[in-house]
Amino acid sequence: MALIVQKYGGSSVGNLDRIHHVANKILQTKQQGHDVIVVVSAMYGETDRLIQLAHALTQHPDPRELDILISTGEQVSMALLAMALNAKQCPARSFTGLQLGIHTDNVHTKARILEVKTDVIQRELNQGRIIIVAGFQGRNEHGDITTLGRGGSDTTAVAIAIAVRAQECQIYTDVDGVYTTDPHLIPQARLLPQISFEEMLEMASLGAKVLQMRSVELASKHSMPIRVLSTFSEGQGTLVTFEDKIVDKRLVSGIAFSREEAVISLSGIPRQVGIEGRILGKVSEAHIEIDMIAQNATAQNTVDFTFTVHRREFPKALKIVEELAKELGAVSVKTNAKVAKLSLVGIGMRSHTGVASTMFQSLGEAGIPIQMITTSEIKISVVVDEAHLEKGAKAIHQAFELDKSPQPLAKVMIE
Amino acid sequence: MALIVQKYGGSSVGNLDRIHHVANKILQTKQQGHDVIVVVSAMYGETDRLIQLAHALTQHPDPRELDILISTGEQVSMALLAMALNAKQCPARSFTGLQLGIHTDNVHTKARILEVKTDVIQRELNQGRIIIVAGFQGRNEHGDITTLGRGGSDTTAVAIAIAVRAQECQIYTDVDGVYTTDPHLIPQARLLPQISFEEMLEMASLGAKVLQMRSVELASKHSMPIRVLSTFSEGQGTLVTFEDKIVDKRLVSGIAFSREEAVISLSGIPRQVGIEGRILGKVSEAHIEIDMIAQNATAQNTVDFTFTVHRREFPKALKIVEELAKELGAVSVKTNAKVAKLSLVGIGMRSHTGVASTMFQSLGEAGIPIQMITTSEIKISVVVDEAHLEKGAKAIHQAFELDKSPQPLAKVMIE
Repeated sequence: MALIVQKYGGSSVGNLDRIHHVANKILQTKQQGHDVIVVVSAMYGETDRLIQLAHALTQHPDPRELDILISTGEQVSMALLAMALNAKQCPARSFTGLQLGIHTDNVHTKARILEVKTDVIQRELNQGRIIIVAGFQGRNEHGDITTLGRGGSDTTAVAIAIAVRAQECQIYTDVDGVYTTDPHLIPQARLLPQISFEEMLEMASLGAKVLQMRSVELASKHSMPIRVLSTFSEGQGTLVTFEDKIVDKRLVSGIAFSREEAVISLSGIPRQVGIEGRILGKVSEAHIEIDMIAQNATAQNTVDFTFTVHRREFPKALKIVEELAKELGAVSVKTNAKVAKLSLVGIGMRSHTGVASTMFQSLGEAGIPIQMITTSEIKISVVVDEAHLEKGAKAIHQAFELDKSPQPLAKVMIE
Repeated sequence: MALIVQKYGGSSVGNLDRIHHVANKILQTKQQGHDVIVVVSAMYGETDRLIQLAHALTQHPDPRELDILISTGEQVSMALLAMALNAKQCPARSFTGLQLGIHTDNVHTKARILEVKTDVIQRELNQGRIIIVAGFQGRNEHGDITTLGRGGSDTTAVAIAIAVRAQECQIYTDVDGVYTTDPHLIPQARLLPQISFEEMLEMASLGAKVLQMRSVELASKHSMPIRVLSTFSEGQGTLVTFEDKIVDKRLVSGIAFSREEAVISLSGIPRQVGIEGRILGKVSEAHIEIDMIAQNATAQNTVDFTFTVHRREFPKALKIVEELAKELGAVSVKTNAKVAKLSLVGIGMRSHTGVASTMFQSLGEAGIPIQMITTSEIKISVVVDEAHLEKGAKAIHQAFELDKSPQPLAKVMIE
């Protein structure tokens, strides 16, 4: 008998049939002898509907009031789920973030959780009840309703799991778990039974939208295992846990990618201390988020500076850079507004050389030019033409045999 | 400069244009130098939508969860209204019943207000802000959300007005105020500038659905004047206040009616002490609400007992009465399932005789048979065939010259 936190996303509670289905899943867990705390998102589409309503009313809705408005989404789904459970003779009670005591800072629409009170949870668990909690929302020090921003329900679930020392935090979604890459793009993609927090963070930040990044960071910091599962099919899903708990160690875990990128290059900038700061400073002032940065200093007296931005920000960023190029005396500004980023992620690459070369060779053999490269400890990212994204991902996936279960070499050696 | 509570009903905030219109009305009041607390209902149709959702999910939704669900209706409208005001540079903040501290008993879906905390209101008023409060809802001693039942927003408004000692409680609706009778039925119906609490209670309980009865009772008990106004047209509406503050005293104020009634008569019951209690006891046990009761004892040894129920309850009530008739040895059971009740209301009839006779004569002249009569201190009710309802109401309306402004006789006499 364990204490388990389960989170069900918007598509999992998207209609009344699905709410009954989720109630049955919760009931199953309860009947296995576990105590269950459930975090629930708004019914699919509801948060968007409410935001649109606010924006149809006024261009800049007051953030405090916007939070009050959109927090009703989870309040509806949590009450319906609790009703479904009670109707199945399974005592359940629902609580808003304010009622449960999910304390956040004061930043409306993007609040961060500071503390989760456990007295209500303890009281209800003692009564043998299932606790349903509204995800995505909390209260600030003034007793006002706050929301955590997109995907915030994952963070609510992890924060509660940490506060009550749950055995694990199960995130139910509409996918089976975390794959080696997007199965929609590469049918050979394989479900990962386990992945480390670090890899998951890299995957999440690179566009694999299974889990919200902040929730993975939080879980990692407090050693809370997360299991990603499908609401609609059986299976063990993917356990996100610590590196040392991963059984089937692999060189690389997966390939993440993001489309909608644009690359801007300033070349032949006369060398000068602090140039990089000047360039990024100007772009940041315009509230443009920069993703990758690479700097080459091939020539003796000049440097080349390249970075990527979201394609939406490209025209704005280009204008700034063109002005900067004149100021700095750069030779040219080169751009490509139709690129994508491909990233290979794996904790194994820390201790193994040759990962980068295998990756670049596989792209080369597939005839795909690499436009930019950046690396971090457990990740190698390349920028390629968006048209080459699928072909490139396939080539890398095959080169690292990600479609095959890893050989249990380490295990054999230990025995 | 005064402190005013305004309540806007569901049709007043039924869409985004109307919410802007309501915001402008509030702004006007503020610009006249008043402090304003606004109570708002759910957008028109929303509460019904939520209740239907719950019943589509499960036959008997848990009452605690049902309250959580339906309370989102006002949470949406209050946030939108506060946004509209803030967008017009009029600082406003919205609060749920739970946040404001509207304490109720524990009866979910039909809670009664026990206390209204004023600390949040005071803090916000001190900051010069408009306060928007969710009507219809509160919190119980456990911190759970409760709702007050249909029309509960009126009661919320009156309770807050009493707690903050407001100058008056303005109830904005989709009608201009209280009429002498339903203007849809009788075009000659006249708007009453004033009406006493007692008359309003009789009118409300008799089917004139302008104000919720409980709110009138509460206002009467705590001497809080209520003004009924239209959201959609200008005008002074109707002030519901104490008898001694009414300027244009009249014999009768108005005619209320209710359709969907059914009458059941037991005649020739052998006299016996306690018969009435036995009959009503049996009917009440079946949770059937009895409206009018009349008993005649014309014959020496037998009595006739007549009562009305809602037409929906008629078949159930009839079955019980037919069994009772055998037990009690009654001669016959007579019924009419298609009757309506017409009631003449007026504080003036206390001190004036002849009101009843004028009423009965006017019905007689119109050729309408009276099937049952009951009277109270300020009301005379008759049961007639539903087919005669309109004709009867017209006849009485004319007989008492309700379409004309009252002659200020009393005033002249005093001067």
